[in-house]
Amino acid sequence: MFEFKIHHKAKDSLARTGTFKTPHGVIHTPVFMPVGTKGTVKTLSQDDLKKINTEIILANTYHLYLRPGEKIIKKLGGLHKWMAWNRPILTDSGGFQVFSLAQEKGLTKDTKFKTTIKIDENGVEFKSHLDGSRHYFTPEKAMQIQHDLGADIIMAFDECAPANSSKKYFKEAMIRTHNWLIRCKKEHDRLQNTRASAPNPQALFGIIQGGIYKDLREESAKFVNGLNFPGIAIGGLSVGEGKHTMLEMIEKVTPHISKTKPIYLMGVGTPEDLLECVDRGIDMFDCVHPTRMSRHGAFFTEHGRFSIKNNRFKTDKSPLQKNCKCETCKTYSRSYLRHLISENEILGLRLITIHNLHFLLNLMRNIQKEIKENNFTKFKRNFLKKFKSKNEKI
Amino acid sequence: MFEFKIHHKAKDSLARTGTFKTPHGVIHTPVFMPVGTKGTVKTLSQDDLKKINTEIILANTYHLYLRPGEKIIKKLGGLHKWMAWNRPILTDSGGFQVFSLAQEKGLTKDTKFKTTIKIDENGVEFKSHLDGSRHYFTPEKAMQIQHDLGADIIMAFDECAPANSSKKYFKEAMIRTHNWLIRCKKEHDRLQNTRASAPNPQALFGIIQGGIYKDLREESAKFVNGLNFPGIAIGGLSVGEGKHTMLEMIEKVTPHISKTKPIYLMGVGTPEDLLECVDRGIDMFDCVHPTRMSRHGAFFTEHGRFSIKNNRFKTDKSPLQKNCKCETCKTYSRSYLRHLISENEILGLRLITIHNLHFLLNLMRNIQKEIKENNFTKFKRNFLKKFKSKNEKI
Repeated sequence: MFEFKIHHKAKDSLARTGTFKTPHGVIHTPVFMPVGTKGTVKTLSQDDLKKINTEIILANTYHLYLRPGEKIIKKLGGLHKWMAWNRPILTDSGGFQVFSLAQEKGLTKDTKFKTTIKIDENGVEFKSHLDGSRHYFTPEKAMQIQHDLGADIIMAFDECAPANSSKKYFKEAMIRTHNWLIRCKKEHDRLQNTRASAPNPQALFGIIQGGIYKDLREESAKFVNGLNFPGIAIGGLSVGEGKHTMLEMIEKVTPHISKTKPIYLMGVGTPEDLLECVDRGIDMFDCVHPTRMSRHGAFFTEHGRFSIKNNRFKTDKSPLQKNCKCETCKTYSRSYLRHLISENEILGLRLITIHNLHFLLNLMRNIQKEIKENNFTKFKRNFLKKFKSKNEKI
Repeated sequence: MFEFKIHHKAKDSLARTGTFKTPHGVIHTPVFMPVGTKGTVKTLSQDDLKKINTEIILANTYHLYLRPGEKIIKKLGGLHKWMAWNRPILTDSGGFQVFSLAQEKGLTKDTKFKTTIKIDENGVEFKSHLDGSRHYFTPEKAMQIQHDLGADIIMAFDECAPANSSKKYFKEAMIRTHNWLIRCKKEHDRLQNTRASAPNPQALFGIIQGGIYKDLREESAKFVNGLNFPGIAIGGLSVGEGKHTMLEMIEKVTPHISKTKPIYLMGVGTPEDLLECVDRGIDMFDCVHPTRMSRHGAFFTEHGRFSIKNNRFKTDKSPLQKNCKCETCKTYSRSYLRHLISENEILGLRLITIHNLHFLLNLMRNIQKEIKENNFTKFKRNFLKKFKSKNEKI
């Protein structure tokens, strides 16, 4: 189980294709994972997801822990059964959301950040964003919740420091993350061995931190790689550090990761980023961007992003994207979709989400194909040239 | 075209089955028409509607006239093509919404009602609920808009007086409706003959008014029946007059309607009403009730209506209704659906709408079957007994 196999490598870049085996099926990499925060990819049914060939989705531990509660999901047979999704699922650790709570309040300075959510070496105390109730997450607790949920891939509990933290604080957070990583692994092994929770084996991925500092990122990469996880994630990027820094950090860590492990870049998912990061050896991605932009009426075409609200689409008979094979494009015109979005009709949100996710998943399939045919670099260049040509400011 | 054929008649009631032929397919009666106010049955795709075997939907002229405008829809090939629905459509005349505007403001006394929306013998001036802009509907205008939209069945422009109007006012409105009816027919014939708009023939239905007065209803039924429409509607009921009065009015009008015409009761659609009205000879129904209740988390079972928000469904593994064949019930548990609705997840609204519409359409198919097997009266009694047994107050 959880075998990662590399099938093709690009000759002129770090891009590669592979397969990752899980109890609920094989994932073809590079892969984009749609985000189903509360156990539902917003606006879509599980059947909609299958129709666009979604291989794996992500769900958020923090949200499911608060509501309905992981014990209820466990009682009902685990996340797969409860949400009627029999393909692979990845759950995050809850860490990112817990640490985001402090940032959302604008308390991003080191000290205040620490005191607002009360971080100590043992874990983090935080208040629910729903009702202000107090909760305490430790690495062990994060493992226990994720075992109750029963996803195929689960994530270590890490500290995600704000992008504008000091280097001193980034280092402190990184060391704490490393210590927690060891505790996560220990608790995960214990739970697996006692078969206390999930009926299927689960793969625990470690997470590299270190902020925007090359030396910290390298140190973290080496440490995490040494713990022999079936997969390794890069956390704390795409949180405001800028594209250039993000790519630089990726370039610093990948050389220190064993070639036999899939690399998962957390929270990244624009078409531009996907191409640049695949180029640098990333195998897995997730991001709320494509689903969120859909609910604002924005859609992808090969010529970039557009807003369906634009007046010129009022009498436009054509589909969102010419020759697109998604249900939305095969059935509905821009004129009708514009009407639905203008009128706040729920169907519009779903139809545009279907198109945008199909667009991204199709991009990933094309990327796989082009890597296989050793044509990725050229494909990337052409795609980006076209994609940037008419991009609207949305 | 527009042939209505009665296939089976119940021996002990006025219930009957039939078929009504339209350019976009045959409708099996008694039929329930889901309401797609703005050219979309709220939360559902056209594919969802087909999967639950929807034979015909209703769309609202008033809303489509205001946005996107019937000229845009005509330009894009008509309502069927624009909304990608190739089965029958019925549009109302816009009258009901225009007259509702005055009622929604609480101005239901005769005089004020008249002055707010400015009714005269020629037509009605009203303000758009969207932007306050002034518009003027006449019988001719209502026909022209509906020809531009191009539905299979279109409705005459009638005056729908408030339920608490005086008898004097009901009579006045009825006479105006009759005069308008003649003008609608004339304009419809003119448009059909010149083929000015819709590419397909359209059936114009007349509407019986007369409020809650037996003599007015009888007078109106005789008048409308005399004009030789392919179908006849009963308007102005189910607007607050009470169940008993509604059924009484139906009983008064049906004897005066030719047996060769389908009878359409406008705005009625609870399971109880459907059964009682089929029993009294009604062939067609529409109502926003099943779609609206879905968006509030209410669902039908054979034991009545329930609210998915109820705490006891939190860990309920069962489907909304045992043995139900809809996609929702075949896939998802009450626990998951309760979570979706509690979390305001859009998917929940759609899944419950699918179930409730499937429930009603399935009820209509069962009604057809039971009439055919001469078992309708018993079926109705048993259904209602069970349905009322556990009904929650929703």
